Amino acid sequence: MRSRSLLAVVMVGLLAWSDADAVQAAADREKLLKDPGVSGTFAVFKVDGDWWKLDKAARGAAAAEVKAIFQKHADSVTADTYLLRGLSEKADFFVRLHSMEMLNNQNFLVDLMGTTLGKYLQNTNTFNGLTKMANYVPAFPDDLKEAMKTAPDPGPKFYVVVVPIRKDAEWWITAQDGRGMMMKEHADATVTYLKTVKRKLYHSSGLDDLDFITYFETAKLDDFNNLVLGLQRVKENRHNKQFGDPTLLGTIHSLDEILEIFSR
Amino acid sequence: MRSRSLLAVVMVGLLAWSDADAVQAAADREKLLKDPGVSGTFAVFKVDGDWWKLDKAARGAAAAEVKAIFQKHADSVTADTYLLRGLSEKADFFVRLHSMEMLNNQNFLVDLMGTTLGKYLQNTNTFNGLTKMANYVPAFPDDLKEAMKTAPDPGPKFYVVVVPIRKDAEWWITAQDGRGMMMKEHADATVTYLKTVKRKLYHSSGLDDLDFITYFETAKLDDFNNLVLGLQRVKENRHNKQFGDPTLLGTIHSLDEILEIFSR
Amino acid sequence: MRSRSLLAVVMVGLLAWSDADAVQAAADREKLLKDPGVSGTFAVFKVDGDWWKLDKAARGAAAAEVKAIFQKHADSVTADTYLLRGLSEKADFFVRLHSMEMLNNQNFLVDLMGTTLGKYLQNTNTFNGLTKMANYVPAFPDDLKEAMKTAPDPGPKFYVVVVPIRKDAEWWITAQDGRGMMMKEHADATVTYLKTVKRKLYHSSGLDDLDFITYFETAKLDDFNNLVLGLQRVKENRHNKQFGDPTLLGTIHSLDEILEIFSR
Amino acid sequence: MRSRSLLAVVMVGLLAWSDADAVQAAADREKLLKDPGVSGTFAVFKVDGDWWKLDKAARGAAAAEVKAIFQKHADSVTADTYLLRGLSEKADFFVRLHSMEMLNNQNFLVDLMGTTLGKYLQNTNTFNGLTKMANYVPAFPDDLKEAMKTAPDPGPKFYVVVVPIRKDAEWWITAQDGRGMMMKEHADATVTYLKTVKRKLYHSSGLDDLDFITYFETAKLDDFNNLVLGLQRVKENRHNKQFGDPTLLGTIHSLDEILEIFSR
Amino acid sequence: MRSRSLLAVVMVGLLAWSDADAVQAAADREKLLKDPGVSGTFAVFKVDGDWWKLDKAARGAAAAEVKAIFQKHADSVTADTYLLRGLSEKADFFVRLHSMEMLNNQNFLVDLMGTTLGKYLQNTNTFNGLTKMANYVPAFPDDLKEAMKTAPDPGPKFYVVVVPIRKDAEWWITAQDGRGMMMKEHADATVTYLKTVKRKLYHSSGLDDLDFITYFETAKLDDFNNLVLGLQRVKENRHNKQFGDPTLLGTIHSLDEILEIFSR
Repeated sequence: MRSRSLLAVVMVGLLAWSDADAVQAAADREKLLKDPGVSGTFAVFKVDGDWWKLDKAARGAAAAEVKAIFQKHADSVTADTYLLRGLSEKADFFVRLHSMEMLNNQNFLVDLMGTTLGKYLQNTNTFNGLTKMANYVPAFPDDLKEAMKTAPDPGPKFYVVVVPIRKDAEWWITAQDGRGMMMKEHADATVTYLKTVKRKLYHSSGLDDLDFITYFETAKLDDFNNLVLGLQRVKENRHNKQFGDPTLLGTIHSLDEILEIFSR
Repeated sequence: MRSRSLLAVVMVGLLAWSDADAVQAAADREKLLKDPGVSGTFAVFKVDGDWWKLDKAARGAAAAEVKAIFQKHADSVTADTYLLRGLSEKADFFVRLHSMEMLNNQNFLVDLMGTTLGKYLQNTNTFNGLTKMANYVPAFPDDLKEAMKTAPDPGPKFYVVVVPIRKDAEWWITAQDGRGMMMKEHADATVTYLKTVKRKLYHSSGLDDLDFITYFETAKLDDFNNLVLGLQRVKENRHNKQFGDPTLLGTIHSLDEILEIFSR
Repeated sequence: MRSRSLLAVVMVGLLAWSDADAVQAAADREKLLKDPGVSGTFAVFKVDGDWWKLDKAARGAAAAEVKAIFQKHADSVTADTYLLRGLSEKADFFVRLHSMEMLNNQNFLVDLMGTTLGKYLQNTNTFNGLTKMANYVPAFPDDLKEAMKTAPDPGPKFYVVVVPIRKDAEWWITAQDGRGMMMKEHADATVTYLKTVKRKLYHSSGLDDLDFITYFETAKLDDFNNLVLGLQRVKENRHNKQFGDPTLLGTIHSLDEILEIFSR
Repeated sequence: MRSRSLLAVVMVGLLAWSDADAVQAAADREKLLKDPGVSGTFAVFKVDGDWWKLDKAARGAAAAEVKAIFQKHADSVTADTYLLRGLSEKADFFVRLHSMEMLNNQNFLVDLMGTTLGKYLQNTNTFNGLTKMANYVPAFPDDLKEAMKTAPDPGPKFYVVVVPIRKDAEWWITAQDGRGMMMKEHADATVTYLKTVKRKLYHSSGLDDLDFITYFETAKLDDFNNLVLGLQRVKENRHNKQFGDPTLLGTIHSLDEILEIFSR
Repeated sequence: MRSRSLLAVVMVGLLAWSDADAVQAAADREKLLKDPGVSGTFAVFKVDGDWWKLDKAARGAAAAEVKAIFQKHADSVTADTYLLRGLSEKADFFVRLHSMEMLNNQNFLVDLMGTTLGKYLQNTNTFNGLTKMANYVPAFPDDLKEAMKTAPDPGPKFYVVVVPIRKDAEWWITAQDGRGMMMKEHADATVTYLKTVKRKLYHSSGLDDLDFITYFETAKLDDFNNLVLGLQRVKENRHNKQFGDPTLLGTIHSLDEILEIFSR
């Protein structure tokens, strides 16, 4: 059955934006970043060479258009922005979107790609996933469960790393118990780094050519390198058919900062 | 032997379109979507950056041309349209065509690619397949056969997912019985999701670098994610040399809606 | 040693074309399509987007240039043309050339690519191969040999499929006898389809990144699909390191028909 | 937590450059090239065809802009430059950056890519890694440890080779002892070439789709070829899932030399 | 240590060219084509579509520039030219360079790519290798050694084939004796074709993502096809991780002939 009403959602106009909305949005943002059942989309973009041939004023006006799109969708979509330029040949920046329905992420991105800047963006990768309840943790020993509650150290985490993962058939055919034992070993290897590396997991099977999107923030790249070395040393690593490819290494920047760089 | 008459088919003019034709077309559509022996073509397109530099009026006129092509072929080709933009870096939209002869699908697409919009379309993927009678179901136990007749819940299914599949040599060399046992396990894993995930299967061996095109509609992406996780856990999954790559995740939209987005 | 005389061949002018030549050419064509020792080249092309921006008159004149090239080489090269557009994202059309010396195929294509249309063609694939005497058939049982002489049904075969194949090292290291037994099983699987699927084989080891180019014509895609399913079920299939990738599915069209489509 | 202060670093102006700074920079350079805990980025670029259509004066002015960027970052980033053009189809040149924080490398490259030349650069590869203390050497026998201290012969090393490496899961799952034994065999194979081949190692797990970036300088390509042959003959080579792909072979050139070539 | 003097080599002007130089060059050419310790570079190019839009006079002038580059480097670099256009979708032509130092090959190519034609060339592949003394032949039985001295038949060899090869880890880890036995079997398979297929071998480990570049000239493609079939049937073939990909099939042409084709 065809849904003609989807378009209505796409065409919703720019909402009035009040302080009360802002408070609500902040609450929603917390919820979207924590809850299961949230749809996450990572949209990765390279800026076309022709963009830089536009004059500075035109690029500045284009930046304002982009900000309006972020505001228009702010009540349904939480958007974070990251700079890849310089640290990855694959793209210049990416946005991470969270909403209660994947459709909202699509509407946001259709609008973004419809702006003047959007017409100069090459969409080099898009990863889609869902947040879900932890699968293996409930069966972990209590001390590990406790250790895993360690909060990240306060203070800014400059760096972001996104690692898409696809498991092999043997992984999935292994019974839950067997996978759980391997995931316990995996979790043990992460405990040392819980304070300096913040993590988030998205489930992608069927929604993308991936099983998981793993997202990390850190201020200490050597800790992150050691964490990954630890994860490579456990048996679960045998079942990673894809780990990265692409690994996205970048830095966390506000939309204003990203747009400033593209408006210079 | 060369067939000079093929071109005559390609050049058939725009047919008069009456209410009686519409009734007939609707009946044909039902038949094409249900019967074995139907040729299906999935043609996936990315809109070229230069398209957006055309003025709005030119883009509107181009949209009208596209609608005329859909009407011209309506008596022989059933066409459904889907928006990928925003959820896939691989393309902006795709059309799914059904007809009684693959040649009709080609004629439709040659005409579509010959329109003003068509000249700005990059054809990023085309999947061809045939619908056939169920191969393994006749040998399934009666209770499974019964369960598989479960009708999908009414109500719109917003999302579409297309997953092309290629099996390994061992799969095909396994005797029918052995494959049947693995497919029973596969079918068992789908029963829970028959209400929320609608499916359709196309056979592609020799017509494409694929063995199957699997097509899904759902309003619940978490159900679809769980369905795929279930399918990954059965032994038949060991024989999927390719599963996705590309997985196409998008939303179901009418041609008018798609054209509206490209005419903004 | 450098051969400066090759260029002389390249520069041979447009020959006068008489009825006697035509009769001779027809005989040569039969010979080239049947004999061993013939060099076959499949040159696959995508028409550049800029082509369509030329006006209709310019495109018509360009078509005439192409026809002249086909005539110029008609006494040494047999050329067949096929439309892929609409059924393959990989290209728009391909030509299949036969001649007694691969060099003639190259000269034809250098001339074709030097025309106005040629300058808008992207050469997406080229497959080179030689026709040879049957390798395994002489050792087949007499009834299979007899069955394999079944002539294709008369009547047009609309569709063409080209499947490039590369075998694994184990195939080649297996002794002739062992390969012969597997090829007998392969041949058995084809007997049912000899009437509706016409086949031709080219040997490519060392001349291309392939071992074989397999070429098929049919009016019944479901028969072709079943034939390939049959071939996938024999043990020889274990040794196909590459089967397709790309599979080219298209329709048989005369040069005039192809040029008409590109001149619209 | 978002770090708005990052941008401040990006926007730091061109520093005054004095002799004292130069002395300090030289000292820092030594430190950055020797110490563990240093962030290395290899940014590989191809010059766009349109660049060459600029007139000579414009290209000369653009070169000056690039030199200013190198100077601006000279107190935090050590930059070496290499010419690939002619010896690699993959790119024209690359820069190797060292700094105490990966962020500095990104800021350098964002600035470089923001210059007039930068807008004509295609960033074909970027490798990121960290220098670390030797992992296996401490457990090596004393004579091997001693041999490994052999200093490279003085005199210019014209050639540079960069080989990115990714190990398989079995490598990492092997215990430290087992890996150490294989690395001893690896180290033994290098001793003969320590005088003519200079090496440096970067650790990339998690920061890139690599485990190691290996960097070599030599004046004798036949020695380097023999070194690699030796390394291919030890068991550790079984665990190289990726070795090269791309291997970058080029020559060592100062920034002035590289810019001179691009300004001709 | 940075070598500023390299640039001086690059900037050497066009040398005066006398008969004595020509005699010397011919001698050097023989030496470069026969001796071990020679650096070989295969640079493969596709001509950009825009090239053909230049007028004939401009293209003729550009051809003269290219000839001057070949002359300028003639005393240090031996250059052979080959036409791929028509027989390979991958490129239009390639040059094979030999010199006593890889740096000379780079200087030649930097100059070539700096010409007007060079700015329209896409460098699709570059293979680098060294000639070395035969590795396995000294241990072969005398009759095989004798047979391998068979000189190629005189007369032009129209065709060129270049096949890059990469061996697997097991090949290299196998002891010299074991490899020698497999190479004897390999050499036995070549004896029949020594008269009609001329061969040359380059060693690339560490200098490229290859172990060997194998180069062949022949007038008989069926003999070459049979030679490769023979090589595929020996056990050493199990260790070819890459054989071709790309295989380059073309024809031998002088620079003048190649330039004539690109100037039409």
